[in-house]
This record gives sequence, structure tokens and C-alpha cells, in this order.
Amino acid sequence: MIIVMKANATQDQVDHVVQRVESLGLKTMVSRGVERTIIGVIGDESLLLGQPIEACPGVEKVMPVMAPYKLVSREFKPESTVIRVKDVEIGGDKIVLMAGPCSIEGLDRLRDIARAVKSAGAVILRGGAFKPRTSPYSFQGLGEEGLKYMRQVADELGLVTISEVMEPRQVELVSRYVDILQIGARNMQNFNLLKEVGQVKKPVMLKRGLCATIKEWLMSAEYILKEGNFEVILCERGIRTFEQHTRNTLDINAIPAVKLLSHLPVIVDPSHGTGKRELIKAVSMAGVAAGADGLMIEVHTCPEEALSDGAQSLTPEMFQELVRDVRKVAQAVGRDL
Amino acid sequence: MIIVMKANATQDQVDHVVQRVESLGLKTMVSRGVERTIIGVIGDESLLLGQPIEACPGVEKVMPVMAPYKLVSREFKPESTVIRVKDVEIGGDKIVLMAGPCSIEGLDRLRDIARAVKSAGAVILRGGAFKPRTSPYSFQGLGEEGLKYMRQVADELGLVTISEVMEPRQVELVSRYVDILQIGARNMQNFNLLKEVGQVKKPVMLKRGLCATIKEWLMSAEYILKEGNFEVILCERGIRTFEQHTRNTLDINAIPAVKLLSHLPVIVDPSHGTGKRELIKAVSMAGVAAGADGLMIEVHTCPEEALSDGAQSLTPEMFQELVRDVRKVAQAVGRDL
Amino acid sequence: MIIVMKANATQDQVDHVVQRVESLGLKTMVSRGVERTIIGVIGDESLLLGQPIEACPGVEKVMPVMAPYKLVSREFKPESTVIRVKDVEIGGDKIVLMAGPCSIEGLDRLRDIARAVKSAGAVILRGGAFKPRTSPYSFQGLGEEGLKYMRQVADELGLVTISEVMEPRQVELVSRYVDILQIGARNMQNFNLLKEVGQVKKPVMLKRGLCATIKEWLMSAEYILKEGNFEVILCERGIRTFEQHTRNTLDINAIPAVKLLSHLPVIVDPSHGTGKRELIKAVSMAGVAAGADGLMIEVHTCPEEALSDGAQSLTPEMFQELVRDVRKVAQAVGRDL
Amino acid sequence: MIIVMKANATQDQVDHVVQRVESLGLKTMVSRGVERTIIGVIGDESLLLGQPIEACPGVEKVMPVMAPYKLVSREFKPESTVIRVKDVEIGGDKIVLMAGPCSIEGLDRLRDIARAVKSAGAVILRGGAFKPRTSPYSFQGLGEEGLKYMRQVADELGLVTISEVMEPRQVELVSRYVDILQIGARNMQNFNLLKEVGQVKKPVMLKRGLCATIKEWLMSAEYILKEGNFEVILCERGIRTFEQHTRNTLDINAIPAVKLLSHLPVIVDPSHGTGKRELIKAVSMAGVAAGADGLMIEVHTCPEEALSDGAQSLTPEMFQELVRDVRKVAQAVGRDL
Repeated sequence: MIIVMKANATQDQVDHVVQRVESLGLKTMVSRGVERTIIGVIGDESLLLGQPIEACPGVEKVMPVMAPYKLVSREFKPESTVIRVKDVEIGGDKIVLMAGPCSIEGLDRLRDIARAVKSAGAVILRGGAFKPRTSPYSFQGLGEEGLKYMRQVADELGLVTISEVMEPRQVELVSRYVDILQIGARNMQNFNLLKEVGQVKKPVMLKRGLCATIKEWLMSAEYILKEGNFEVILCERGIRTFEQHTRNTLDINAIPAVKLLSHLPVIVDPSHGTGKRELIKAVSMAGVAAGADGLMIEVHTCPEEALSDGAQSLTPEMFQELVRDVRKVAQAVGRDL
Repeated sequence: MIIVMKANATQDQVDHVVQRVESLGLKTMVSRGVERTIIGVIGDESLLLGQPIEACPGVEKVMPVMAPYKLVSREFKPESTVIRVKDVEIGGDKIVLMAGPCSIEGLDRLRDIARAVKSAGAVILRGGAFKPRTSPYSFQGLGEEGLKYMRQVADELGLVTISEVMEPRQVELVSRYVDILQIGARNMQNFNLLKEVGQVKKPVMLKRGLCATIKEWLMSAEYILKEGNFEVILCERGIRTFEQHTRNTLDINAIPAVKLLSHLPVIVDPSHGTGKRELIKAVSMAGVAAGADGLMIEVHTCPEEALSDGAQSLTPEMFQELVRDVRKVAQAVGRDL
Repeated sequence: MIIVMKANATQDQVDHVVQRVESLGLKTMVSRGVERTIIGVIGDESLLLGQPIEACPGVEKVMPVMAPYKLVSREFKPESTVIRVKDVEIGGDKIVLMAGPCSIEGLDRLRDIARAVKSAGAVILRGGAFKPRTSPYSFQGLGEEGLKYMRQVADELGLVTISEVMEPRQVELVSRYVDILQIGARNMQNFNLLKEVGQVKKPVMLKRGLCATIKEWLMSAEYILKEGNFEVILCERGIRTFEQHTRNTLDINAIPAVKLLSHLPVIVDPSHGTGKRELIKAVSMAGVAAGADGLMIEVHTCPEEALSDGAQSLTPEMFQELVRDVRKVAQAVGRDL
Repeated sequence: MIIVMKANATQDQVDHVVQRVESLGLKTMVSRGVERTIIGVIGDESLLLGQPIEACPGVEKVMPVMAPYKLVSREFKPESTVIRVKDVEIGGDKIVLMAGPCSIEGLDRLRDIARAVKSAGAVILRGGAFKPRTSPYSFQGLGEEGLKYMRQVADELGLVTISEVMEPRQVELVSRYVDILQIGARNMQNFNLLKEVGQVKKPVMLKRGLCATIKEWLMSAEYILKEGNFEVILCERGIRTFEQHTRNTLDINAIPAVKLLSHLPVIVDPSHGTGKRELIKAVSMAGVAAGADGLMIEVHTCPEEALSDGAQSLTPEMFQELVRDVRKVAQAVGRDL
């Protein structure tokens, strides 16, 4: 950590800061420049976390040198994490396809969609039973009933499942039925929920918040790892920008960036990342080309009847075409589907 | 709702959309322009909520005409809502001052701060017992112990209290100790939490999310009102933008905008809205000039020892000066402190 | 265009709006709903451009139905535009590689870099002679001298050239030396400059502004086409968001989106789009997978001595590796380098 | 400047960086921490401007300590700058009101508007003769004819004038007619234009770009001062964010922030800052409460006939009411109109 003093900081103020820092067991190195005095802190920077050095008189700003996360970083664990769920590997050589409806709407419809996505190449079935909706008047999901349908269909077809958990009290229930717990974008900083899924023996997919920086996203993952659950999958699903033509702006830079900073696998969700059916295939191909370990895609046998996200749901035919073209890109980057 | 068909939409596609809309009990009005066919929907637009008309073949886009919220709108309730808590009125003629430490750190310190802010003019004591922190390694709050200190100090000094509740399971506990429940910015779309506080007989202050639009903020308030709790206070605390000089960008436009759209009272939080101690007074004055019903300010007797947000905490002396200058602005706009 | 009247609009106000619209030679269709009266406008919407109907008493909002651009749209010209410069085709089957230093720094250095990028597969040499720099104290470019070096090197090696023009007075000069004029991101809405390059018989590459929407970007291209110059290349170079880990956020969605909306070719600039050397290869591959017609990459034989953008410049070796991997992706999407 | 080396940087890499820095006449201080080696640079940081130290092998990141601007900073000139134009002082005790139409549309209309704003309290007449419009099909301004009208009306009524200059070639022409040159938001980084107005003996009002940081805004002002023109007025006119309810988000934090960082006067433009007529008065009051030195407001005698920005233009009556209420706030903060 570097502490920059104000131009007019007094010697007493410098001494006071040095004392505060050293009282925590750290060393300092004071550099008196022409225009500013700078105090370098030597030692474990995390001891300063939560110490408001910026509030000391005479301090202009404080600049951390180290990343604030540990367990999720490649410095901590250089080799990439591969998560195994039944016979599916996430983060391995193969690109993993997660697909299914936005919401689980009924047993038969779910089975139809699941069959379609499986036959196209998907290995993980997605579908929401608890739905975070902007409006209290929108469909809120089938709840436990939906989870039962999902389990039944997945068992019939031999698919792994993923579904969202919205609050700490649901964790036990959802864990009973699904293989991978999903934390939605709006809950990325629901810290109590993160702690709760950190104590479960199930992989967790953590979606990036709509306006979360990469650093905050990794800090939220750190919450889960800190509780003991190292099976965390990151999911880039687009961030909010001024652009209105698309629902979100998929941050393609984040994929190689996170792969360099962290050992965790990264999935791309182009359905939410674009919000427009006609853009999903191209952005899926881009995601895989950029290094993503898998894709999560919304598919519906009759998008215009979907109870949520119909406008960004692909038909089974469109999904099949997407898989065909994504496979070519996967092979071009030395992977497969 | 207006449905715009694609340039090359067929008559069958137009008919299909008309049928879908009319099957919901709505009327339509089809206008065939030179370049586009447009279908106007007449009747209760909310019947179309969750109907993915955009997914129908031939549809280019769907444009809603009405705001998606009802209970929070001034169209529903033209007169401004005034919330009474003990002898404090929020949304009335007087500007309400909420002040106190970011986190409750101990009984004596809290009492010192509470005395200082009360003597300066604050009527509501703020302080966090459950703290949503970006890092799992930061101080997470004293929990119930903190709430007890808060109750004790508030009772000694005759102050109303406000404190954050972070998840549904905490609602009952926090309600036992505090007068106003706060929903933090990161939980603005924690819908289960919103439903839970909607069933409590306590006023709720809903902070705007870091990247929430005004519409989404009002929709989150709608969740609470829909459950039966009409005592909702809105709090503008800054949004996230590209600007890095300040922690957030306080959206001053939102204050008059929300006062026009909704009947609910609006509080401004310039501590988080700026993140910089030296900007708080000016932005507090601006907030009141723009029509805010009150301010929430972080104050600490020793900011450099604060366990959170020290850099944006005012000393009691700075707070006193702020109150003096805000009072002049309040009087200039026909209100008082 | 759809005009939504306020809930309390009077009949007189509705009549007044209808009259205003019809006086322009357009037809109207009035739909009286339960909550709002809506006026649909039938006819050439562009006649209403610059008519502030929103300022008429009783109007709540105005919603345009048509895109505001014409000449750049695929509705106007369905087939993709291919621009030929000497023996290079931009927008054709082959992915076009533009590479070179950020700034032209001297004849020998430019020649070295040009040789390196040519041997790796680049067909267009980039290099700035007039440099838009945030700071007046930074290197501002060699000016005409730089252009001469560029012409000489390009002629020696048989390369096409591209260089930035910063203001109307430079257009004639830069046109004398280079094959493609570049409009930088900060000048995307320098409308006088757009008009000026619209009158030149040279292709123009228009970079997207840092906070320009796709619509505004296309409107700026429209300025150039409207003057008679249809040889416009669009370049996505990243937009500004809250994310600070990367210099900009490359908007990958924009590539397929613009290819659908417009017939113009699209180039991706991952050097500015990421600002980080280690991310450029992955994002280049993503850009081509998403449908871009080419890439623009900053290359320098000694990045640490570059007079601008050193931190995002690739060495010739890194560029060679990038070309090798991008080629595989190009082939996977049915194109080539 | 602080240079942070990568975790695995070699001694040779550290030595190389030290050598590079010292070869520029600067001193270094190397601090070897447990996890990172850090190199502090002592001396005039500006010598490193344009030196891509980040591109040296082994460097993780470079953190500047000093602000990159000089002449505009309060460290350079502690006392506030007051600009005198005829009998008007900008940056002095009085709040300055600039008002008038968005575009100059004709002599009589301009005279009517000018009379109205003058009688309400405005001392500077605004009006555009050269209009930067997003669409090439929109009204582009009357050009020199408009400037002549403006001069005539201002002379009749004893008003100071301000009008936009869009490109270097117009500077001489516009200077002949108007008292203060305005640089529009879209030209904030039109560096050739900045250099040109830096050589003129007229005050310049520099609008903040739509997505410019405070630092970039001040750097653009620095361009003008560096050329010798110290009479620069800054104008906050809102930035672009995800919020769509308002045209822009007026950055109220920027007002006190810039007043602390710089000695230059700051004007607020709530017309563009909100884009909504009904929000302008409240935000004007907020701007003055936050410390602005003046306001720029669009006024039109018949907004629904305005050739540009009608929806955000006030009628003379609304402007009068605004002045009345702003005056009260001005007095509350110890100033006057």
C-alpha cells in the first residue's frame, strides 16, 4: 500500500501515519519528494483492510498495491480448477453447454425442451424455479414443484442440472434437487447468501452483477471459497452501460482477464449478455474464441409463450445451428464440445 | 403498448399478433404505414406483462406506453406520503436529519456520536449492525449486540433509529430493536427480502441500487407496497458511472424526478453519494435545494479509527457546520430543519 | 412516430397536436385508451425531425418508430458493402489485418515495424502522424513528416495505409499521403470534420466514440454518406464503462448488431478495446468469431520506447502468434486471412 | 509515480526499470516487499509522461501520484479566477445567469427572447449559430447570419454574448461577433480547436464531454491555458449514464470537486443536464447550492416551435420563476444574482 500525503502535510501528520501503520506490525518507507511525501508500506497489506488511513489528517490518498482477493487468485493456485459433476467436467478441455428454458413452466414442456437441447449437445439443463423479477406482477416461478420436474426430467435423460437460489433459506431445499446452485446477477453481493452456499457441498455458479467490476466479482467468489467451497464457476452475463440497443453489454474482455487473474472456470451467458435472439449465436462463438469454458443459453420450444425472457430464447432449431457453429470455433481454439 | 412489426412482416404475422393480444381481452388498432405496420393495444396494459409478444414472428419491437408501477405512482396517490415515526415526520415540511456511524462499534462510542449528532440537530440515529462488505475479510458488524446498543442509546437520548437488514431471516430480529428498516443498495433487487419487509409494520428505507434505473428503483418499492406496507422512504445514494474521482455519482436529477413520479418521501445520502468528506456539505445543500425530504450522513467522533467508511465520515464539528449551512438552504426553499 | 398524451391532457391539446402533425403533410390516428390518449403518425417520420412535439402542451412523450438513419441502413442497401483499396478488399471474404505503431516515430523504426507486420500477414499499415492526446504535454505526432515516411515505407513494401485526420483543415494534406482516412473516437461527433471527409474520394474509417450508442455511431456515418462518400468502414474500439481493469470495454455485441443494421464493413480494434497487451489476442479471436471484417492492432518493435500506447503495443513476435491463432478462427467461420 | 513489479519479476527487470527512470534525471527508491517489489520515483513526475514504463518487462502496473494538469490547478494558483467581460464578472460574488434559445432562429425571435431573459435577470445571452446535431438531417444553424443577429440584439439590450465555435476555421469569425466562445461537449477533446481558442483574446467556456472524467475535463482546459489563454470557464452539463429517464445525469459532485481542484469558475447547465423542462428549476437551485458560479439555461418564447431542444426549453414565465427561486438559494449561500 502506498500512502500519498497532501502537499501541505506537516511532519507531525507524516509521523502519525507512520505510527499507525507500524502499530499494526508493518514496516514503512518514507520518501520525501519535491511535491509530495509518500509512505510505502512493507508487509502483509491485508492487515490494513478496514483501517481508514485515508481519514488520517494530512493524507491525500491511499493506493493499494495488491489485489484484495486471495483464494480465487492464480497466485494462490496457479493451475486451472476443473469441477466435476457426475460425468461432466467444467473447466476442462471440453466446452460445456448449459441450456434450457428461462423458467420451468411445467413437466411436459420442460421434458420437450430438455430432449431438444440434449440432442443438440447440451449436457447441463438450466431452468429457474425461483425467479427474480423486476416487477412483483410478473411470474415468480413454480418453486419446489419446478425443482421436482427438473430432477425428474434430468434423471430420465441423464442430464446435470443448474437452478437459481435466491435467498439463504432456500439453499437447503434447492440443494436437494439440483446439481449446481446458481447465484443470479442481482444477488452477486447478497453476502449472506454467498456465505450460505459456501457451506454446501455443491458447485456454485456465480453470475457477475450488472454493474460489478471484475474485482468485486472475484471478491464475491472469495466469500464462497472462504467458507470452504472451492467449486465455484464464474459466469459473465453482460454489464450495464449506456448502450440501449442491447439489453446488456457482454464484457468480452472479462473472459481472458478473469482467466489470467483466477483459476476458476468461466461460463458465458449470451442470452442475457445481448437480450436479442439474433445476436446470441455470434456472441456465443466470440465467447468460446475468447477462452470461455462453456455457454449458458436460454432455449424454448415456443418462445412466444415463454413465461419469461421469450424475446431472448432460441428455438431448438436455432440452438442446433448455434451448436454446430460454436463447435467449429471450439475446435479452432483446440477444444471440443 | 405499441407493437412495431418488421418491414417485411406478412399479413399472417400481423393477424397472429392481433389474435394473441385480443385473446387476453384487449383491443387492438392496426395502422399500416408506408414502412411499418403498427399495432396499438387498447386496454389494461398490465395484462401483457410477461407475455413475450416480442418473440412472435414478424415483430420488430414492443414499446410500453404506461409505467410498470402503480401503487408507488402519483397517478395512483396524488398527495405526498408523510411517514410518522414517534414524533418525527418524514416527507413533511421539515427536513429530517439521519446521522451516526457507518457501523455500530461499541456502546460508549455510539453514545458519544449519538449525543453529538443530536445536539447538532439530527433526529434519527443511523448505524449498521449487519454490514454488507465487499470483502469477506472486512469487519462484518456486531450483529444483535450492536442493535441492543443502538436501542439503549436511542432510548436514553430520545432518538428514532434506522439500521440495515440484510436478509429475510434477520427481519424479525432487526424489527425488534429498530424503528426504521433499511434496505441497502446491494439488496435493492433482493426480492425475497423486499417481500419480507413488506409484511412488517415498520417503515422501510429503500436505497437505490448502484446501477438501478429510477424505474427499477420504483418497481422495488412497488414490491414492498404490494405486500401491504405503504411506509416506504426512498434514498438516493449515488449511482455507478465511469467517473473515478468520486466513489459514486449522486444523481441529483433523480430527486425532483422521483418527487414527480411518486408520492413517497426521498432522502439523500451524500456520504455514499460522494465518498469524499470534503464534498459532503456542498452536496447536502444541493440535495435539499433540489427537494429532498432529508439527509443521511455518516458521522464519527474519530473517523480514522472507524471500522468502516472512515474516509467519508464527518467529525461532529464538520457535521455541525453542515447542519448550519443546510438550514439556510432549507429555509430558502420554504422548509426548516 | 407515436405521441403519448398525459393522463390529464385536454381535448384541445390533443387537437392541437393532431393539427401540428397534419400541417406537415402527415396523417394521424388517435386512439383513446382508458388511461392515455395515443396519437399515431402515419407517413414519412423524418418530416417530424426537429419538430419538438414533446414541447406541445399535454404531451407526455414521443416515441419514434423508425431508425433515424437511412443511407447506412440495410433497409436502404441490403447487400454488404465491399471497399476496394488497391488490391485489398474490406468487407469481402478475407479478414483484413491493419497493423503498425500507434505513432509514426521515425523512418527506420516505421520501416522495421512495417516489415514485421507485413511478413506476419498485415496488408494495411497503420500509424499516427497527428495524435489526439489527452495531455498537451504528450507527444503530438510528427505531422506531415510522418505522413511522408508512411508513404515511402508503404510504397517500398506494397502496403495500403491508414492514418488519422484530426480537423477539417488537415483533410487535404492527409489525403495526399494516405489511402484510408481515419476519424478517431474523440472526433466521432466532430460534424464539420465528417462533412469534410464526406467530400473526399478516399475511404474513411470511423471509430466509435467512447460513449456513443450504436445509433449515434451510425448517424455519424450517415453524415459522411450524405455528402456523397459511401466508402465508410466502421471500427469498434471499446466503450467507456465503470470497469477499470481494462482501458475500455470492447462491445462485442455491437459487431453482429451493426452487421444486421447496416451494410458497412466493421473492423475491431482490440488494442484500444482492452488497453492490455495480454488480452489482445483473445479479444481479436473473439472479434473475428463475432463477424468482424478485420482487425486493427498496434505493433511496435520496442514497446517500452514507444512514444504513445506502449503498454498496449504487441511485439512482432506476439503479433505473429496472434495472426496464427486468428487465422484458425477465421477459417472456422468460413473466412480466411 | 509508483511502479509495481510483477510477483515473479527478476532482479534484471527491476534494474532495467530503475535505469530507465534514472536516465531521465529522476531518482528511485526500491522497496522489496514479501509479495511485490515496488519502485518509487522521486522528482518531477511529468518527465515520465509518455514513457511507457508499463511496457517494460516485469512491470505489473504504474500508479501516478500527481495530477497530470498544472496551470488549471489550485496548487498552481490558489486564488479563484474571476473573469471580467464588459461589466459582468464570472467567478465573483454574483451568480451569473446565461440564457437564451438553443439556436438563433431569426432576428425578431431572438430579440423577444433576449428581452425576456434580460428582464428576468440574465446578463449573458446564449444562442447557437453553428449547431452540432446528431443527425445530418436536423437544422444546422444560421451561421454568420445568426451571429450578426446576436450582436445586434446584445448591443441593443446591453448584454454579453456567448456562442459555440465548432472547428478551428470558425474561431476567427465567431470571435468577431461574440464575447465568450463556447466549446461544446462533443468537442471537449477536439484538441486542435482547443489550441486555436487558446490563442484568442476572448474568454472560453469549456463544456464537459458526455463521458469525460473530471481529470480529462481539466486536461482539456489545460490545453487552452497552455496556449496562453487563462480565461477559461468550466461548464458541467451532465454525463452519460445508464439512466434513461433523463437525457443526461448532471454530476452535482463535480461542482465542489472542481472548485477544490481548480481555480477556474464553474457554470451549471441544467437544460442539457436533465433534458426535461420540469426538472430544470430544481436542478438549477441544487447547482447554486453546491457552489456553481452561474447557470446556463435554454429559454424560448414558443418552445414547441424551437428548431432544436424545444423539449428542454423554458418559457419566459418559467424562467422568471426559476430566477426568483434560485435567488433565494443564492442568498442562502452568501451570494446574489
